Amino acid sequence: MYRSHNCGELRETHIDENVTLSGWVHKTRDKGFVIWVDIRDRYGITQLVFDEDRSSSELLDRARNLGREFVIQVKGSVIERASKNPNIPTGNIEVLVSELIVLNESKTPPFTIENETDGGEDLRMKYRYLDIRRNPVKNNLIFRSKVAMEVRKFLSDQEFIEVETPYLIKSTPEGARDFVVPSRMNEGQFYALPQSPQTFKQLLMVGGMDKYFQIVKCFRDEDLRADRQPEFTQIDCEMAFVEQEDILDVFEGLTKHLLKEIKGVEIDKFPRITFDEAMAKYGNDKPDIRFGMEFGELNDVAQHKDFNVFNSAELVVGIAIPGGNSFTRKEIDKLTDWVKRPQVGALGMVYCRCNEDGSFKSSVDKFYDQDDLAKWAEATGAKPGDLICVLSGDKNKVRAQLSALRMEMAERLGLRNPDEFAPLWVVDFPLLELDEETGHYHAMHHPFTSPKPGQLELLDTDPGAVRANAYDLVLNGNEIGGGSIRIHDKETQSIMFKHLGFTPEEAKAQFGFLMDAFQYGAPPHGGIAFGLDRLVSILGGQETIRDFIAFPKNNSGRDVMIDAPAPIDDEQLKELNLRIDIKA
Amino acid sequence: MYRSHNCGELRETHIDENVTLSGWVHKTRDKGFVIWVDIRDRYGITQLVFDEDRSSSELLDRARNLGREFVIQVKGSVIERASKNPNIPTGNIEVLVSELIVLNESKTPPFTIENETDGGEDLRMKYRYLDIRRNPVKNNLIFRSKVAMEVRKFLSDQEFIEVETPYLIKSTPEGARDFVVPSRMNEGQFYALPQSPQTFKQLLMVGGMDKYFQIVKCFRDEDLRADRQPEFTQIDCEMAFVEQEDILDVFEGLTKHLLKEIKGVEIDKFPRITFDEAMAKYGNDKPDIRFGMEFGELNDVAQHKDFNVFNSAELVVGIAIPGGNSFTRKEIDKLTDWVKRPQVGALGMVYCRCNEDGSFKSSVDKFYDQDDLAKWAEATGAKPGDLICVLSGDKNKVRAQLSALRMEMAERLGLRNPDEFAPLWVVDFPLLELDEETGHYHAMHHPFTSPKPGQLELLDTDPGAVRANAYDLVLNGNEIGGGSIRIHDKETQSIMFKHLGFTPEEAKAQFGFLMDAFQYGAPPHGGIAFGLDRLVSILGGQETIRDFIAFPKNNSGRDVMIDAPAPIDDEQLKELNLRIDIKA
Repeated sequence: MYRSHNCGELRETHIDENVTLSGWVHKTRDKGFVIWVDIRDRYGITQLVFDEDRSSSELLDRARNLGREFVIQVKGSVIERASKNPNIPTGNIEVLVSELIVLNESKTPPFTIENETDGGEDLRMKYRYLDIRRNPVKNNLIFRSKVAMEVRKFLSDQEFIEVETPYLIKSTPEGARDFVVPSRMNEGQFYALPQSPQTFKQLLMVGGMDKYFQIVKCFRDEDLRADRQPEFTQIDCEMAFVEQEDILDVFEGLTKHLLKEIKGVEIDKFPRITFDEAMAKYGNDKPDIRFGMEFGELNDVAQHKDFNVFNSAELVVGIAIPGGNSFTRKEIDKLTDWVKRPQVGALGMVYCRCNEDGSFKSSVDKFYDQDDLAKWAEATGAKPGDLICVLSGDKNKVRAQLSALRMEMAERLGLRNPDEFAPLWVVDFPLLELDEETGHYHAMHHPFTSPKPGQLELLDTDPGAVRANAYDLVLNGNEIGGGSIRIHDKETQSIMFKHLGFTPEEAKAQFGFLMDAFQYGAPPHGGIAFGLDRLVSILGGQETIRDFIAFPKNNSGRDVMIDAPAPIDDEQLKELNLRIDIKA
Repeated sequence: MYRSHNCGELRETHIDENVTLSGWVHKTRDKGFVIWVDIRDRYGITQLVFDEDRSSSELLDRARNLGREFVIQVKGSVIERASKNPNIPTGNIEVLVSELIVLNESKTPPFTIENETDGGEDLRMKYRYLDIRRNPVKNNLIFRSKVAMEVRKFLSDQEFIEVETPYLIKSTPEGARDFVVPSRMNEGQFYALPQSPQTFKQLLMVGGMDKYFQIVKCFRDEDLRADRQPEFTQIDCEMAFVEQEDILDVFEGLTKHLLKEIKGVEIDKFPRITFDEAMAKYGNDKPDIRFGMEFGELNDVAQHKDFNVFNSAELVVGIAIPGGNSFTRKEIDKLTDWVKRPQVGALGMVYCRCNEDGSFKSSVDKFYDQDDLAKWAEATGAKPGDLICVLSGDKNKVRAQLSALRMEMAERLGLRNPDEFAPLWVVDFPLLELDEETGHYHAMHHPFTSPKPGQLELLDTDPGAVRANAYDLVLNGNEIGGGSIRIHDKETQSIMFKHLGFTPEEAKAQFGFLMDAFQYGAPPHGGIAFGLDRLVSILGGQETIRDFIAFPKNNSGRDVMIDAPAPIDDEQLKELNLRIDIKA
């Protein structure tokens, strides 16, 4: 037996007990006549003591030679500490060691195993197994495990069945790029790794499985933006005999359960807004509503004067930055530069100071009088002491620009409190989205999403106006889940495929099995999928999903620890009937 | 709202309530003046009634036209049934329908949705979504979900952390064949899908994670034997600071928990036998101990006479078939033919009848007298009325042959009761296994398994004799789990790789990251992995794992429902820098 207790367990109640501990040498302090060693494991740190009076000189010598991260086992008795450490749970005791066994030595680790380490990202990833010994990473992984378990408990209690769907499936050109897997037994053919279990969960509904979930890895071979992983985890859910309301109810319940169990936060009914409202109020379909700064549309109160910039704009829209009147002119100029950066892309910014005395001072005073500006203040909800920032131009672009400014200011003003949780549902998404490059419409959610009742006809005349039974769950400015009520009849699905540019043959080749299934009594159904990586990082109050993944890949899709991907044997290629064909 | 209750829920207490049900038309009985429709969902079947007295003729007509597997929604009131059906939980009531909505029609399904269907395996797999509507398949999937949940609960309660390890890893030529995934972003390079998370879980131990588990898909590109799947699910577990005893304890606890929670079976301490003992007693390293028929070795009592077949044999060994004396001569001859089939491969069989009067009658009476045969009976535990069957020859071969006979006889005699559960641990496996074809030794478990203390030296002189800290959990003649205490120092691991025929360069290229990790304070650790597919099928009292997988593949690795694998676009191949190169 390697240990009687773990390193986070001993308290004053254990004093005088003989114990055995195992763990890593975290730190050694050598005062000559006495040596303290901190032994560490997953559960905590316990102080070991060796001294001239009570330890043999041989034992003292061996303690002296322990290096950082050596793995040791000690036997000894628990004693009261002379100088207690109130900062750690074991701080009232120490273990007077009678026996010391070195289980394994360690080279000096390439970075310190501390909460704040001296190791950079690259080094930490190469030695991820050492990084995981650090509390922040270790705790994130434990936290993730706990969240997943709570999800499973909640859904199982509601009679959801976790069904494993296959990983070796079929490639579909639609959507993102698939990872493919050559089949040795079926020459020249390939499996694909799932981007999601979408079609399988719908087939489970056709199969009567009724309430399905799965916590499952999904794969996308996309050029990786920061904080995207080629493999990621979804909480994938589907229900039959449901309307949108039923789904929102159940998964609002799940989210409340997580917030309560994991964070101790109780939230009443989640607000709901439509996609159109979200775009108008926040310029964003995943608004962060922990703070205000809602958009005020100013067309009516800013297009009646001779200011051509506004008059020629599709939309004039502003936000009130709380306390922003305290910004210096220089600071405001910098803000203007910020919105003009190519990443944001505004052409300029108009501002209006709201003075404490109720008067206004704007950058366009020669066009607008105090009455005009008072109306701006009213529309943006600005109070004395605030600064109104106004952008104008093409509606979609200017909303995105102002949304960027809103988020940036919230960040700067410390309004994005990671311990505060503000979920909301965004509903009534458009069914289709125009690809500006190709001029074609494609499915905003996916091709299985049903249009709102009675809107199917609009597909021919005004496809962009068709609204879908689609919804997102947004938490603190992040989409943590999204789903829809699906199409469940072959005819509607055929119409959808046609509008998405599939020939009947293409639709049959790729989704024939689903269309067939719809002919054998498919029930009304719908579902939702949560991004687990994102969900745990937000619940954990952090921004980077990589910190919540045990062995993440870097932005080139490489695992730098195991050095993958890597070349394979010619023999393997030959068995797969493949040749590598790299163009110069 | 599509339903107020499900189709398995209504009882006499609901009589007079107005309810809404949704489900599939299971069966219709039309007596002209009254029509009964069985509506079915995941939860059960409820009888609907339409009749001339209480239903409009229009409603009666519509009920009459319902086809099998139509999806319907009905509103109505719960009434007491005139003729009750005690075989189903809802059998005391029926629903008098006032409103009928057809949610979706159905073509006639290609097989009946009944417990005993008329659909063959191929048809059922092609329309798996219909097969899943059948109780046996549906219940298996629900059962699987429950087993997985109980595993997670038990391990989480013991502070195990479920950590997701990556699916896109690195190919290692060692072991079974990998599925590979071409990387688009890293030209000419490949990921591999994991055959198990072995190295990652060991790195988690180096990372201090201490108690890890994961229910995880694994992949092997092997030619598929019956009942093997290219993707399969493991309950993968690892612990640090443990000896073999600790692991057996925890996972005996898990197995007991499952038997109790899932099957209501309480089992005390699991028996343990060594690999050598299992081979000697059962000719098999995964013995079914639900019944006796243990091997009796007969060399001492059968090689002292002039019977050359036995005298020249390495091993003479027999079993006593309970009640086998009742077999006719013809039946025994057939049994002899059975063991001589190429699949078993014995050269012949000697038998000895144990008469009720205590006398013996053997097929080799001219060589052996009653005293000799009495000793055979004693060695095999034969009682009056039994039949002793004796095989002889090369030790390993004859044990395998007699094991086949033992299992066959148990099957025929009905001794393999699927409702009885007899787990046992087989321990002290050989470290290495001789590949008869190549003459090389390879790792019996895997190259990370540690030899028993003090046996490392034997590797040079008698590699086959080295025993490992390796163990299997066997249930009813199936290996349901296997594991080992791992090597945790670089030097021992290097010696192992050398003996397995790796050059230092090969070892470094493939497992360098693990060897590196061992230099930074790797703790003693070990683990186990359970095959979930097999485990649930045995707990479910069935033999075929395919029946417990939602969407299994056939023996050519194909998913016949979605028709995968399939060719991919030239464009996709080009992006991956691949060309298909099929030899004629």
